[in-house]
Amino acid sequence: MITALDHIAIAVPDLEKAIERFAEDFGLDLKAREDVPSAKTSAAFFPINKTSIELVHPLNGEGPVQKYLDKKGGGIHHLCFRSDDIEADVERLKAKGYIFLSDAPTPGAHNCKVIFIHPKSCDGVLVELNQPMSN
Amino acid sequence: MITALDHIAIAVPDLEKAIERFAEDFGLDLKAREDVPSAKTSAAFFPINKTSIELVHPLNGEGPVQKYLDKKGGGIHHLCFRSDDIEADVERLKAKGYIFLSDAPTPGAHNCKVIFIHPKSCDGVLVELNQPMSN
Repeated sequence: MITALDHIAIAVPDLEKAIERFAEDFGLDLKAREDVPSAKTSAAFFPINKTSIELVHPLNGEGPVQKYLDKKGGGIHHLCFRSDDIEADVERLKAKGYIFLSDAPTPGAHNCKVIFIHPKSCDGVLVELNQPMSN
Repeated sequence: MITALDHIAIAVPDLEKAIERFAEDFGLDLKAREDVPSAKTSAAFFPINKTSIELVHPLNGEGPVQKYLDKKGGGIHHLCFRSDDIEADVERLKAKGYIFLSDAPTPGAHNCKVIFIHPKSCDGVLVELNQPMSN
């Protein structure tokens, strides 16, 4: 089942400028930065309200976030829900007709298994599910 | 200053179906529903992680959310940060060059004063600031 809102991801064309905006202009605390080669992104995390705003930028100018930026210039990219049994949630949602971007969860950021629900299955919202691999 | 992530708003083409999705498929708790005539929206609130996912749908087929749906079909519409002094934050951010969608905060949902930062000022993200009017 879904237990939390893990993060809200914002695709940004200039990661350093966006970090400065969220840290200095909006006053949030930068907690961590992480390159996520599996997603071809470089990310910065700002914890807020027991969740996190995650700024994501393409690594090496490629990958799905680069395509998103090429098309839209920037914006709120996805929501991520934490699951306590991601395989069971995927199976349950597939049975309800949800389309996923991959067949099964794969390793992603924060040592988590991750999978994305197709935006067409959720009113245009890209929804990620994740679960720590140590669970 | 910004003190919290008040909510994440998702524009949905069918509010009842979206409520069913978030309640039954994603397992979140529907806390409240509210029509917000000032924003020409009908909204449903799902608290999660000390913040809230707010599903928004146009009231009477008009207003900015209707225009968004006409263009995009649905999606994550905006983030809202809670401010403890919204006039001071607006003045501070205007001085940094941020463009707002109105000159000053106006009454919005939850008995709050609200104002929106233009997406062009924030990498394509529509950012709302709010503050309870009783503060």
